[in-house]
Amino acid sequence: MAKAQLRTPPGMRDFAPAEKRRREWVINRIRKIFERYGYDPIETPSVELFETLQGKLGEEGEQLLFKILRRGTSIDDLRTGKASSVTVESFADVVDSALRFDLTVPFARFLAMHSDLPRPFKRYQIQPVWRAERQQRGRYREFYQCDVDVAGTDSMMADAEIIAIVVECLRDLGFTEFQTIIGHRKLLDGLVEVVGGQEFATDICTAIDKFDKIGRDGVEEELRRREVPAEMAARVLETITTEGTTEEILDFAERAFENTQNGPCGVAETRELFGILAALGVPKENLRLDLRLVRGLDYYTGPVFESVVTTPAIGSLSGGGRYDNLIGKFTGQPVPAVGTSVGVERIIEVMKEFEMFPDMVGGTQVLVTVFAPESREASIQLASTLRAAGIACEIDLRRKKGLKQQITYASNKGIPLIAVLGPDEIAEGTVTLRTGPKDQRQVPLAEAAAQVQRFLEELGRG
Amino acid sequence: MAKAQLRTPPGMRDFAPAEKRRREWVINRIRKIFERYGYDPIETPSVELFETLQGKLGEEGEQLLFKILRRGTSIDDLRTGKASSVTVESFADVVDSALRFDLTVPFARFLAMHSDLPRPFKRYQIQPVWRAERQQRGRYREFYQCDVDVAGTDSMMADAEIIAIVVECLRDLGFTEFQTIIGHRKLLDGLVEVVGGQEFATDICTAIDKFDKIGRDGVEEELRRREVPAEMAARVLETITTEGTTEEILDFAERAFENTQNGPCGVAETRELFGILAALGVPKENLRLDLRLVRGLDYYTGPVFESVVTTPAIGSLSGGGRYDNLIGKFTGQPVPAVGTSVGVERIIEVMKEFEMFPDMVGGTQVLVTVFAPESREASIQLASTLRAAGIACEIDLRRKKGLKQQITYASNKGIPLIAVLGPDEIAEGTVTLRTGPKDQRQVPLAEAAAQVQRFLEELGRG
Repeated sequence: MAKAQLRTPPGMRDFAPAEKRRREWVINRIRKIFERYGYDPIETPSVELFETLQGKLGEEGEQLLFKILRRGTSIDDLRTGKASSVTVESFADVVDSALRFDLTVPFARFLAMHSDLPRPFKRYQIQPVWRAERQQRGRYREFYQCDVDVAGTDSMMADAEIIAIVVECLRDLGFTEFQTIIGHRKLLDGLVEVVGGQEFATDICTAIDKFDKIGRDGVEEELRRREVPAEMAARVLETITTEGTTEEILDFAERAFENTQNGPCGVAETRELFGILAALGVPKENLRLDLRLVRGLDYYTGPVFESVVTTPAIGSLSGGGRYDNLIGKFTGQPVPAVGTSVGVERIIEVMKEFEMFPDMVGGTQVLVTVFAPESREASIQLASTLRAAGIACEIDLRRKKGLKQQITYASNKGIPLIAVLGPDEIAEGTVTLRTGPKDQRQVPLAEAAAQVQRFLEELGRG
Repeated sequence: MAKAQLRTPPGMRDFAPAEKRRREWVINRIRKIFERYGYDPIETPSVELFETLQGKLGEEGEQLLFKILRRGTSIDDLRTGKASSVTVESFADVVDSALRFDLTVPFARFLAMHSDLPRPFKRYQIQPVWRAERQQRGRYREFYQCDVDVAGTDSMMADAEIIAIVVECLRDLGFTEFQTIIGHRKLLDGLVEVVGGQEFATDICTAIDKFDKIGRDGVEEELRRREVPAEMAARVLETITTEGTTEEILDFAERAFENTQNGPCGVAETRELFGILAALGVPKENLRLDLRLVRGLDYYTGPVFESVVTTPAIGSLSGGGRYDNLIGKFTGQPVPAVGTSVGVERIIEVMKEFEMFPDMVGGTQVLVTVFAPESREASIQLASTLRAAGIACEIDLRRKKGLKQQITYASNKGIPLIAVLGPDEIAEGTVTLRTGPKDQRQVPLAEAAAQVQRFLEELGRG
């Protein structure tokens, strides 16, 4: 037979069982926390109409879309540059949809189409997204996003809840040395206004955003390169490097941005946010106010946040913020919203690298062997009995394989327990349970399920 | 604000929370059964390379592919009919991949790429697939498939296990009046050979396949239309309408196909299959041998099966069979395999239509109300306490909403229990739990979690 192509598309992965179980383990833990805070699951199609996505992602985002050929476009259309006898002028003539880029735009469209659902609407959504990024190690073109959002309230209660959930997820997965860094777009507005830098707003924010990577000197250099006047740059640097407790930084910002348009609101909201986080019992050591946090996406309007693991130093595992204007592009009227993406792909990678996964329980617990054709029926019945007791159980599915080959199969698959029903056992009404030649016990067949369960518990696999 | 497009792509659906929870309920029950039989989960990318899919789906299947524009194809390429200055000759010049059409071809590719995994390889896979079908009520372009397959063994043990799993899934979901109809491709071969109809093989099988829909007379008419000689048609009709028990039909087939090439093997395998199904304890009333079962897909080579619900008469809910040649197209050497698709989309539809879903438990169990700004902190702390006890709990996230509005929110969202912490309760160190004005109880705040759990159990929501 001729062999067909043996590749997945670049940047897209198969998940074999062990990896798939690890992924599910992480996702299920996160999902449980979302549910405990009263968030409901939704799902949207993998494909969105081209016009739904257009104008929401920025030019850079749109270039990364996987575009889908309009149904019925023939090869003749493509050969001649005509689609259904209309000359092709733009992508929309041959492309009518694309794979979704993120879960936020689909959520906004969903909300606008489901005005019957109770508000505030609290949803989580865990699905893949697609981006045609340049190929690079550790960067995927298909990856899961795990989003949790509230739409329909501008109260800091919502922002605090989202942050509390992120912190709880990371702690629950075993991360301890991390901080969720919190900034506020209106504090940035205050900063820009107080230094008189409105016309340099983008330059200032872009430079500040790089502080973690390039440090104070780097930001200074960047501001100079962007022709921000030296005195203005000095004031920016002085402000953003103010050190102190959250309370001290807020007191400083209150004074510094006192006469700006948005600063006082930013200070009041940030102060309220930290108050609610304390009431929610979020550990102080996992929170940090940082006037330098910008976060690139254009659509944020209020608090922004990002969780950064410090030990091991692996960087950001989640990011989010308040976006009060995006949903309005679909509903026609403003709908305030706040949410975050928990970076499941990065979390799974880091947990593997630092061996943070527990020994995975799951998969087959017992292999019932077939000793000989004449005892096959007895083995099948034993397997059925074990399954009826809720035990994940296999029976050898091959023709005429010896006990040794069956044991090898169990070992390759990591099945902890083997049940042998040979002629002696059948004559005595027993079954032999074994993990290896030195650890085996013969038990009455009538007690098989209970004995298997006990054995598995002893092995820590119950 | 200008309103953006408010549609999902045709044939693709949003799932709001209640529907998403129903879908997960069904999928999780099925998944548990797969796991109990020792099947492992895998996942493959939504996108496959075009050449992986080509030549596997038949011409009709290929026309239904959602084709993805090659990354970097510019609008100029499309306008001029040239891609990177090469004249476009075929789809492959502008399209390099497509959304997957089913889970079987990706499974075959996966197997060939993961030769390290233990054989036989038992996997399940529950993911969406995409088909650009003509629009029609109840037909979707994005839908889930739920596949369970064994690769690497030609023993009837595998076929029997797959059938047992399907029957168990349907019974577990609440279907009782259904039959899994079993046929065998080699019995069809025997039939065709014994009537001397090799040159009419396709005509005979296509006609037989319609028996359930068009009846005996319809098949007769169809055979005539296809110019199958009258005497041959009569023998076909006589054979396929043989009535009797499984044993009687098999005895008949044994005699009838005695001297054909594949018939005796078909009889022996079918007999073994029913023997194993009996040993597995699959109820006889859920099984039926039918010499007329063909199933369209070209790739089946041995037993084929289909589960049909008789009351209510809603038709087929699953289908599958043995396909010993498909995987070889990827591995270069034959790998026998058998599997089935459990029709989750149809199952969910039918279960809704016939109200087979239980009252869904899930979602928020308690809303902690905020009585006044000064008691917000106490309410937040109560919510945290309940969550720490594993209770799914919400607190009102809006600014300044009265108790009445909070109760309306709970009622709209179907939250069964409300916790009120007013000034009286706070002064007394209590909390009032209520389902409505007539069913409320004041309990000590320190016992809140235990009392909430008891109340929920009384409501059947524990």
